Amino acid sequence: QVQTRSPKFHIIKKALTEEKCVSTKTSAADLVTETDHLVEDLIISELRKKFPSHRFIAEESTAAGEKCVLTDSPTWIIDPIDGTCNFVHRFPTVAVSIGFAVNQELEFGVIYHCTEERLYTGRRGQGAFCNEQRLRVSRETDLSKALVLTEIGPKRDPDTLKLFFSNMERLLHAKAHGVRVIGSSTLALCHLASGAADAYYQFGLHCWDLAAATVIIREAGGIVIDTSGGPLDLMSCRVVAAGTREMAMLIAQALQTINYGRDDEK
Amino acid sequence: QVQTRSPKFHIIKKALTEEKCVSTKTSAADLVTETDHLVEDLIISELRKKFPSHRFIAEESTAAGEKCVLTDSPTWIIDPIDGTCNFVHRFPTVAVSIGFAVNQELEFGVIYHCTEERLYTGRRGQGAFCNEQRLRVSRETDLSKALVLTEIGPKRDPDTLKLFFSNMERLLHAKAHGVRVIGSSTLALCHLASGAADAYYQFGLHCWDLAAATVIIREAGGIVIDTSGGPLDLMSCRVVAAGTREMAMLIAQALQTINYGRDDEK
Repeated sequence: QVQTRSPKFHIIKKALTEEKCVSTKTSAADLVTETDHLVEDLIISELRKKFPSHRFIAEESTAAGEKCVLTDSPTWIIDPIDGTCNFVHRFPTVAVSIGFAVNQELEFGVIYHCTEERLYTGRRGQGAFCNEQRLRVSRETDLSKALVLTEIGPKRDPDTLKLFFSNMERLLHAKAHGVRVIGSSTLALCHLASGAADAYYQFGLHCWDLAAATVIIREAGGIVIDTSGGPLDLMSCRVVAAGTREMAMLIAQALQTINYGRDDEK
Repeated sequence: QVQTRSPKFHIIKKALTEEKCVSTKTSAADLVTETDHLVEDLIISELRKKFPSHRFIAEESTAAGEKCVLTDSPTWIIDPIDGTCNFVHRFPTVAVSIGFAVNQELEFGVIYHCTEERLYTGRRGQGAFCNEQRLRVSRETDLSKALVLTEIGPKRDPDTLKLFFSNMERLLHAKAHGVRVIGSSTLALCHLASGAADAYYQFGLHCWDLAAATVIIREAGGIVIDTSGGPLDLMSCRVVAAGTREMAMLIAQALQTINYGRDDEK
């Protein structure tokens, strides 16, 4: 039983109400705050006490120059605040994401929706849950009945935006019911795991956005693959997820690639 | 004190978990369910008992052919389920919106976020609240620091989509922090009222999406205007809302018009 009432869980919720010191990273839209650093340091220091030999891949450590390479060692993959832009604006769609991999295989994931106090968990072979409720993906296979989620991604140059809009347009031309952009990849993927959406795709997200959510979606019966239609590559900065393989392939086939490089080559 | 624990408030929440019979209205993306009709009928019949001389403008009655004209008579303006597409997909961003106008002036508004049990209220001259908490808009005037909300709208023909994407692109080129699309105009406007976003714009929404939210935003200190920069016309199917007049004018100046006609000429 995870103690979501622990004071540590309230750092982000409390910080949401306060003035923030905001810095930018790779672009004017790629934001970071003191709270991202504080929460990341707290998570890593607590885990390191218990598991001194484990490795860590985490958003702000990587931004600070640490290598982002997944080895066979037990590795925690951490996003201290997913939805930092939302967090800065007090837009209540903000989460902490912690995934765990051994031998490069994802073993479990935990995602905490800070403002709604929802804890999403998934463990390989043992199902996925939101608080105590078992999660099940949508079984939809028809794109013209689909609700699709995506995110804009940090790059905002004209060529990238053109491709971003073109991809959204292709899905709307295919008569998808709607496309939503909520500002948190991790929470969008949790909506997918809970059956509240039929598909998700994105270019420009990172392994820490994906790691925990991938286990949760798979344990809820869903599919997480590469935008090419092939197997997921956690370091490739791109993903398609869906309730069914048919839906995932329809989305993958509709997309034009936006090149964001790789997490392990930065 | 509004009794949000009343069983009537749980019709939508309960229906969210059930299979739905979905019909389409003006386009494949313009959905309606039995619950929209049920909730609208319930609200109108309850209000009519208490206020037999009052008039009603409501989404599903209008779709069924009733005239949508705002007169000087006391008038309730009702959206039984805003975010019907979300509702159909169990995407938890769904609200009931009820506004009230006399002499064509909006007097109060009530919006209930069904899954999060948040009740937004605003009364002219008396402030705006979410549950017991007073709402205050953002004071941001710089578009390059703004979080902007919008919705796609029901028309999905290539020309409309081109304008929709072009508008979003203009705001991202102006370096807005982000654009969010959550699938409920009413709840997006509530986020604006609570200061969680800096601006909102849309073409293709209706008076029942706007009526209650307009009072709530104004009472939270915000601005609700036409996309031309002039005064709001509740029947014009278009709006810009922002925390500050400067921000509202920057958004209005950036937008190209998408013609959706008028609610009172359909």
